[in-house]
Amino acid sequence: MASGREHREGEDYGDAATMGALRRLQAGYAWADVASLEPGAAAARVRVRGAAQAVRAVGRRVAFLVLRQGAATVQCVVAGGDGGGMARFAAGLSRESVVDVAGVVSLPREPVRGATQQVEIQVEKLHCVSRAVPNLPIGVDDAARSEEDVGRAKAAGEQLVHVGQDKRLDYRVIDLRTAANQAIFRVQCQVENIFRQVLLSEGFVGIHTPKLIGGSSEGGAAVFKLDYNGQPACLAQSPQLHKQMAVCGGFGRVFEVGPVFRAEDSNTHRHLCEFVGLDVEMALKDDYSEVCDVVDRLFVAMFDHLNQNCAKELEAIQRQYPFKPLKYTATTLRLDYDQGIRMLQEAGVHVEPMGDLNTEAEKKLGELVRDKYGTEFYMLCRYPSAVRPFYTMPCSEDPRYSCSFDVFVRGEEIISGAQRVHVPELLEAQAAARGIDVGTIASYIDAFRYGAPPHGGFGVGLERVIMLFCGLGNIRKTSLFPRDPKRLAP
Amino acid sequence: MASGREHREGEDYGDAATMGALRRLQAGYAWADVASLEPGAAAARVRVRGAAQAVRAVGRRVAFLVLRQGAATVQCVVAGGDGGGMARFAAGLSRESVVDVAGVVSLPREPVRGATQQVEIQVEKLHCVSRAVPNLPIGVDDAARSEEDVGRAKAAGEQLVHVGQDKRLDYRVIDLRTAANQAIFRVQCQVENIFRQVLLSEGFVGIHTPKLIGGSSEGGAAVFKLDYNGQPACLAQSPQLHKQMAVCGGFGRVFEVGPVFRAEDSNTHRHLCEFVGLDVEMALKDDYSEVCDVVDRLFVAMFDHLNQNCAKELEAIQRQYPFKPLKYTATTLRLDYDQGIRMLQEAGVHVEPMGDLNTEAEKKLGELVRDKYGTEFYMLCRYPSAVRPFYTMPCSEDPRYSCSFDVFVRGEEIISGAQRVHVPELLEAQAAARGIDVGTIASYIDAFRYGAPPHGGFGVGLERVIMLFCGLGNIRKTSLFPRDPKRLAP
Repeated sequence: MASGREHREGEDYGDAATMGALRRLQAGYAWADVASLEPGAAAARVRVRGAAQAVRAVGRRVAFLVLRQGAATVQCVVAGGDGGGMARFAAGLSRESVVDVAGVVSLPREPVRGATQQVEIQVEKLHCVSRAVPNLPIGVDDAARSEEDVGRAKAAGEQLVHVGQDKRLDYRVIDLRTAANQAIFRVQCQVENIFRQVLLSEGFVGIHTPKLIGGSSEGGAAVFKLDYNGQPACLAQSPQLHKQMAVCGGFGRVFEVGPVFRAEDSNTHRHLCEFVGLDVEMALKDDYSEVCDVVDRLFVAMFDHLNQNCAKELEAIQRQYPFKPLKYTATTLRLDYDQGIRMLQEAGVHVEPMGDLNTEAEKKLGELVRDKYGTEFYMLCRYPSAVRPFYTMPCSEDPRYSCSFDVFVRGEEIISGAQRVHVPELLEAQAAARGIDVGTIASYIDAFRYGAPPHGGFGVGLERVIMLFCGLGNIRKTSLFPRDPKRLAP
Repeated sequence: MASGREHREGEDYGDAATMGALRRLQAGYAWADVASLEPGAAAARVRVRGAAQAVRAVGRRVAFLVLRQGAATVQCVVAGGDGGGMARFAAGLSRESVVDVAGVVSLPREPVRGATQQVEIQVEKLHCVSRAVPNLPIGVDDAARSEEDVGRAKAAGEQLVHVGQDKRLDYRVIDLRTAANQAIFRVQCQVENIFRQVLLSEGFVGIHTPKLIGGSSEGGAAVFKLDYNGQPACLAQSPQLHKQMAVCGGFGRVFEVGPVFRAEDSNTHRHLCEFVGLDVEMALKDDYSEVCDVVDRLFVAMFDHLNQNCAKELEAIQRQYPFKPLKYTATTLRLDYDQGIRMLQEAGVHVEPMGDLNTEAEKKLGELVRDKYGTEFYMLCRYPSAVRPFYTMPCSEDPRYSCSFDVFVRGEEIISGAQRVHVPELLEAQAAARGIDVGTIASYIDAFRYGAPPHGGFGVGLERVIMLFCGLGNIRKTSLFPRDPKRLAP
């Protein structure tokens, strides 16, 4: 310490009883964010609260403490005082404990390694606000390690801890502190922002539809059922009917961001039992290509924004989970389903021209499209009617095909959209043709009897957007607290 | 018709088979929005799709048609042709049918009454896109009538239809088409936008927490229970734990917009079984007044925005549901709970100093505050600990009081907020003191054992904000498809 004054336990350092006490003990220092501590702040007297990411004692009188706030870290130097009480106190802090540091910003002689900020804090006061248990179930640095690093170390005969996906999720409150996770969920927030901004600028109205639905949902199978004051109810598998009703109710163009529930027993890398749906529904003028136009503008704007404004976050994700930037074009490629089928057939893949594509065929088509058109983001339009829901509008010139589309990112389906049938008689006929008891969906059909504009829309899962944009390979990595057939906690 | 040419059925007017046919039949006219049809558009050849709000025949050869799009309406004149076939077709359209009109914009000799736009369309083509049933269960004009108008008519011996709240909700897809409802949900969208914008500008991250929760929720009573693949589960009554975990997970300041589920049997004007929660949680520096500061900035910005940018919508709401503009101040008044108690006692209201305020007392205090301070928006801080949840931080200088607050609009509670206990031992003690089995909330408490910053936050129901800002008196009016103990449809 510059003054050489001895640090007093309880006054200059120690565990803090209350925030009021802290305010008194650390008076005279200005609150600062770690991310704002740049060389220009040298000599400033600052107070910082952060997590003790790393603690290292050097002898009995000096300790180095790396403090983390969000994704930013700064090195703090605890020294001075003949007794070295404060340095020993620092050295005894358990990792991840939350501490308040007050001191002077200084420029280190050598570049700091192991911290994002290129300044240090010469600590004058140090108080622990919240003690972490000494033996954390997972370490933040272990959780932040890439598989490559673990592999490289192993090859060199060294053993590095690798935290498995399930253990990460069990201790999500720690796992979320890694730089990659801090970035993933900040990027996710940006994706939602751009979704909203683009749609609001095009006259869409944001709505909220109910998640509690009477009966057993819109003819769906895998719904979560519950008792609603004595009435049978279930959780909405999609806001389909209600967003259509909002359009028919005069709102013209609507969107919703909200949870979607699927009780499917799908233990895959891309399914969740609860996810965040980004849904759009709009009145159409001439045809469903207007929906495709919205998808095009929306997602190109989103991808552009992420690349231009989230470089730091994308880098952080890449350090732990390496991926190649998504290839996309300024105007999104649209292929007809028939064209896609032909490309697959020409490549020797066996596919039924009027059947659905399985995941493998979709993946293969993604490769063919990337190689031929240079994009990993494209739309496949005009699906066979037989593979789409009964409420999909058939093409008027050939009803074997429908006014529908899917959108793919890196060979995986991410968006499904279509024009809907707004004609009650046609809805009834199409439902009946699929063996659906029309009586069970009478209220759905009735909604179109009071004057209904032609309309269409699409839905996309927020978690899938980030998973596929960043090539993360597991949707559990892009859900804050994922819910899959086995996981209901934390 | 200017040319005097006879209108041909099937070609110039009739029911439209497909959108493709419509495009051919109405070629040569440019799509226009009703709201954009201003006098400057005179002589333009436009095509408009809208709902037939009103139809009136004048003799055999002329008909007037009022077309509605969202909240905008325009009068269309169907005339010309000796046979008058098109006028008769128009006159035969059922109300609320969706029609395409192509024609020339003209300036009427006298101001148009009964339409928002001050131009007319001289119709040259008229096609019905979607026929409404001839006998609508409720009429849009009936649903749009104010109670005052019904009362005035009754006093004058005239009988006007008044559509009750339940019937409106049964036929919500029609009810939503009134000008007041178009305005209410557009205002609601703005409220959410401002909420997000202000928080994003202050470094908050938007998150999504799960609505499916293991066990039976955070010690709450009235939860919706369900079976989750053989595990007991329930629907989240609030994102409380998960938003706290996000803060402890390194995000520092978070917000969420999402559904909140309450299985309470509360049949009141202000309770719903499912509503949209606006939730905030943030790490604190010095004390919980920082949360109050956020509430202050956020809501003043929101009220300012609504008054400045949503005048048209607020007028439309006022026409059907008269209300006085909310009184609020540039900086929000903060009273201590003790002060509130004294004001009530001085006004002769019997209240327990350390007990909770009932709805009546809250209402009364709202009046006293309005009269004394000139505001209908204020905060009541430092509630007795006994009337707050166990996870509320007690005041360090007097633990009988807590670091908590409620916010009131027009005498009704709208926001509840507090600093939370981030110290595991204190959480355990407070839970035990309230008779809660600490074992059942072990995972909640464990979340704070890995280093937890002091933090606090608040929650507010989106529907209540609009209900109280607009003095609507019934929360069912501000929920798109409300869910109450009796209503689960549509």
